[in-house]
Amino acid sequence: DTAAVSVVGGDFPQEYLDLLSNRNINLQGVEIVKEGKTFFWSGRYHNDMNSRDTLVTELNTLADFNPVVPSEYKDANVVMLGNLHPIVQSSVLDQMTSKPDLVILDTMNFWMDSALQDLHNVIKRVDVITINDEEARQLTGEYSLVVAARKIHEMGPKYVVIKKGEHGALLFHNENVFFAPALPLEEVFDPTGAGDTFAGGFAGYLAKTNDFSFENMKNAIIYGSTLASFCVEKFGTERMVNLSNEEVHKRLLQFKQLTQFEIELS
Amino acid sequence: DTAAVSVVGGDFPQEYLDLLSNRNINLQGVEIVKEGKTFFWSGRYHNDMNSRDTLVTELNTLADFNPVVPSEYKDANVVMLGNLHPIVQSSVLDQMTSKPDLVILDTMNFWMDSALQDLHNVIKRVDVITINDEEARQLTGEYSLVVAARKIHEMGPKYVVIKKGEHGALLFHNENVFFAPALPLEEVFDPTGAGDTFAGGFAGYLAKTNDFSFENMKNAIIYGSTLASFCVEKFGTERMVNLSNEEVHKRLLQFKQLTQFEIELS
Repeated sequence: DTAAVSVVGGDFPQEYLDLLSNRNINLQGVEIVKEGKTFFWSGRYHNDMNSRDTLVTELNTLADFNPVVPSEYKDANVVMLGNLHPIVQSSVLDQMTSKPDLVILDTMNFWMDSALQDLHNVIKRVDVITINDEEARQLTGEYSLVVAARKIHEMGPKYVVIKKGEHGALLFHNENVFFAPALPLEEVFDPTGAGDTFAGGFAGYLAKTNDFSFENMKNAIIYGSTLASFCVEKFGTERMVNLSNEEVHKRLLQFKQLTQFEIELS
Repeated sequence: DTAAVSVVGGDFPQEYLDLLSNRNINLQGVEIVKEGKTFFWSGRYHNDMNSRDTLVTELNTLADFNPVVPSEYKDANVVMLGNLHPIVQSSVLDQMTSKPDLVILDTMNFWMDSALQDLHNVIKRVDVITINDEEARQLTGEYSLVVAARKIHEMGPKYVVIKKGEHGALLFHNENVFFAPALPLEEVFDPTGAGDTFAGGFAGYLAKTNDFSFENMKNAIIYGSTLASFCVEKFGTERMVNLSNEEVHKRLLQFKQLTQFEIELS
């Protein structure tokens, strides 16, 4: 029982809305501004596919987006706050009639530069933060990711997920740490959206299993990494549209083989 | 039953030789050139501790080193060829009276630039190669490490270990791949020797267990990563000298907790 709250312009292709509806995602909360244009981004990736230069960012309809949470979703137990202005993220939490069991927040350096205090205010209110390595360093002023995670933990979130692109992702919780690699691929075709796919897979797995323990968070990290590994194989959403459960299952097995070992500790 | 074959100058501190002897490492094959100087390297690490500039390299006694394998070690079952000129590496293999069960080779970009054909000649003769990511790319002209590993595999070695410093290490064998992360540390004090420590731990684990299956290679990678994680915590060999079995055991457990998960594949 999943709903999206977002905004698009009249230019947004109906087929993408249909794609979500057909997967039983409730789109009541998606505002369509007929005369407006959808958010647009373009960029150029470097040879390592792990860093990029932004060419164009147009906020368009996102610029003055006021999210309205549909009444039947005001008691959702898992809330994923996408990477938007922290005031917009806060306003979603303000609309909830009951405290969600789990609030996950994604953010980026742009908000650290332009709205740091607002960002700190919303970070206080969340259970899990997902952030990349450079952003974790910027937010805390610490080079060591272990120390950075501890400082972010002190800002509020019980769980800190640090994304390292092709170098995998780390999950921190008190003194515990878990690491999931990215699957080594023959070719990375287009990394755009891999971070969002990771976050979606992570949040979706937690919402579906309804288990927010550290052990299950590990699985959610693996699940998110698995989905992200598909995203980068083709352009845009192309690979995700045709993805089957069997393919996901097979790749989860590959992740197991990639990292699991049986060393005897005598 | 371990022996070292190497060369040092008269300036080499006796305490380091004693350190090895006291750990039951046979040093018959270590030549001491009294009037010579030991190999010397110094460098400066960048902020990320994962890249560095070499300031001084003096080969000294290594420059015209002719390794002599002591007769009682000419039938060793595991041979680790350290990162030296490929002709020197080949000459060690030539001295073996019986084919070792496992030959491991470490190399670097320097030999690719200066002795590529000799390097190819020795690579053909080994079972396992350890190499870092940039060097794997240089040797094959392939950016993808998956493709690079396959090409190196075709050059001879059945197992290809690609070291990625703080980003861990990959083990390739036919279509199988295994990944071991580096342990996330509070502080990396001095990464010098981490790669050698990894290689030593890897080879030592295999020699001790005498099992050269892919499954046991995984454990060897984990063991090597565990030892390397200690090496970087203090300067030079300082941390390794005082290392206890209990500490190694505890850190192996940390590695297990860092990567092992129990996802249900329904």
